[in-house]
Amino acid sequence: MSSDLYFIGIDGGGTKCRVRLEDASGNVLGEGTSGPANIMRDSGLAKTSILDAVDKAIRSALNHASESQQTLASFSLQRCVVGAGLAGANIDTAKRAFEQWSHPFNSLYLMSDLHAACLGAHDGHSGAAIITGTGSSGTLWRNDTFCDVGGHGFPIGDIASGAWLGLKAIQHALLCLDGLMPQDALSNYICQMFNAGTTTAIVSQCGIFNTHHYAALAEGLLPLLNANDAVVMGLFTEGAAYINAIANKLLAGHHHPLAMIGGLSHVYAQYLSAPIQARLVESRGTPQQGAIFYARARYAKTATK
Amino acid sequence: MSSDLYFIGIDGGGTKCRVRLEDASGNVLGEGTSGPANIMRDSGLAKTSILDAVDKAIRSALNHASESQQTLASFSLQRCVVGAGLAGANIDTAKRAFEQWSHPFNSLYLMSDLHAACLGAHDGHSGAAIITGTGSSGTLWRNDTFCDVGGHGFPIGDIASGAWLGLKAIQHALLCLDGLMPQDALSNYICQMFNAGTTTAIVSQCGIFNTHHYAALAEGLLPLLNANDAVVMGLFTEGAAYINAIANKLLAGHHHPLAMIGGLSHVYAQYLSAPIQARLVESRGTPQQGAIFYARARYAKTATK
Repeated sequence: MSSDLYFIGIDGGGTKCRVRLEDASGNVLGEGTSGPANIMRDSGLAKTSILDAVDKAIRSALNHASESQQTLASFSLQRCVVGAGLAGANIDTAKRAFEQWSHPFNSLYLMSDLHAACLGAHDGHSGAAIITGTGSSGTLWRNDTFCDVGGHGFPIGDIASGAWLGLKAIQHALLCLDGLMPQDALSNYICQMFNAGTTTAIVSQCGIFNTHHYAALAEGLLPLLNANDAVVMGLFTEGAAYINAIANKLLAGHHHPLAMIGGLSHVYAQYLSAPIQARLVESRGTPQQGAIFYARARYAKTATK
Repeated sequence: MSSDLYFIGIDGGGTKCRVRLEDASGNVLGEGTSGPANIMRDSGLAKTSILDAVDKAIRSALNHASESQQTLASFSLQRCVVGAGLAGANIDTAKRAFEQWSHPFNSLYLMSDLHAACLGAHDGHSGAAIITGTGSSGTLWRNDTFCDVGGHGFPIGDIASGAWLGLKAIQHALLCLDGLMPQDALSNYICQMFNAGTTTAIVSQCGIFNTHHYAALAEGLLPLLNANDAVVMGLFTEGAAYINAIANKLLAGHHHPLAMIGGLSHVYAQYLSAPIQARLVESRGTPQQGAIFYARARYAKTATK
């Protein structure tokens, strides 16, 4: 592989875009973070965020120029091979539209954020990953192929996700405020979060809610879960049944490991069945590293053709 | 009440706006139908739809001018007292914004579409109404006051509604297509409706889905329900439990009747508990008539002040 190439790994989600810049030998030169990069929601913003985060990574590399001076001497975006793991890239139409971008790089290999996370978690080796954060989804990387389960976006999919939990919590609070159930700790928590004591006060605020607004309510459920609140335990038990089903599907027929990723991963991990728990491993690397792994592999194939 | 006044009753929902024009004595002069009039979603469009449907009602009145010639001689919009039952009017902010409208009428009394339907169903007498169509909600009209239960909009509320059923059906189909459950009649139905056999084909179409898209899937569930499909029966049983809870809440502590309104009302009526079923009555009148009842009552109060 040409030594005057640089490799960029991008992890782009609904709120942040993280970039890692490496030289051809795999030395980290710099890192950068910027805004949202979900190509299904706003591909223009995603491109802006990517360029911004790449720029920041380059600047951070230049700040460490004493170490990497020689390497950076030949730097230009045209020498960068980019792997981009972006939210929304699992949607064919969004992926195809984004691939029309006249980007400034040597080449750009697009994958979903889930795939980058899976490759990063297992350092490019075979393995499965389940993300439970704002959304939820799972994939298995094996024989140079991804097999996805779940995801699909909120509200039709992403069961057990933060957004799913937040919606369920609001629905419960509205039942309580309507007098169809007694008020309880969960409805009190939701009323607090909305600074509201009536259904109309909650409903009017929810008018502008997107996935992230719903998911923002999930973290506050954890103290209730830890206090064995029956309603909240019911929500997580329902979510965990789904995560278990995904895990069973992903891990059937082989012996590769499973990485649980995302803000809710530690919560759901404790609900997994014993055979699934036995396959759990900590992530070896970041999604940015997974994206670079993918870009290196794809670029190497092109170069040898 | 002045005999040179006219009364207009409006029933405005997410897809249609229906208008009824009466003279001061309560004779129907004309009727008209136009497009959407949901003031939460698009109040500008709602105003256009209302003016359009009113115009059509006036034209239909003029076509029957032989009968109503004398009455229409003095007609002008400035002599029209309007009652408007509009979707979204249950949201305070939407209601207040709409009430700023410099409308061309003598006066305009705004209420929710649910309230107009309830007044119409019981001809202005005390009674409860539950709507189960695209959305779901219930109200009790008693002692000149409405008490609402449920509603709140999709997806945080409107449990048991057509939109809720449609979402649940899609969620089920995605579980089946992911191989987490065996494919069945319901997943086959959804695949047919989307002309799709993969999750991505369904997901990409759902990207633009609103309440009405989800609700459009509900009618096709009825043949499966009638064929005792276990999964579909489970959805309707869950929905019916909520409708029963609303009915119990609305009917507690008095002996007024209940009217079930909307496209799914006959389906859910058969699931209601025996004491609730004993209180069921057929609707006496339309929401437009209910809106006129409300306008007449409110106008009479103003006139006697």
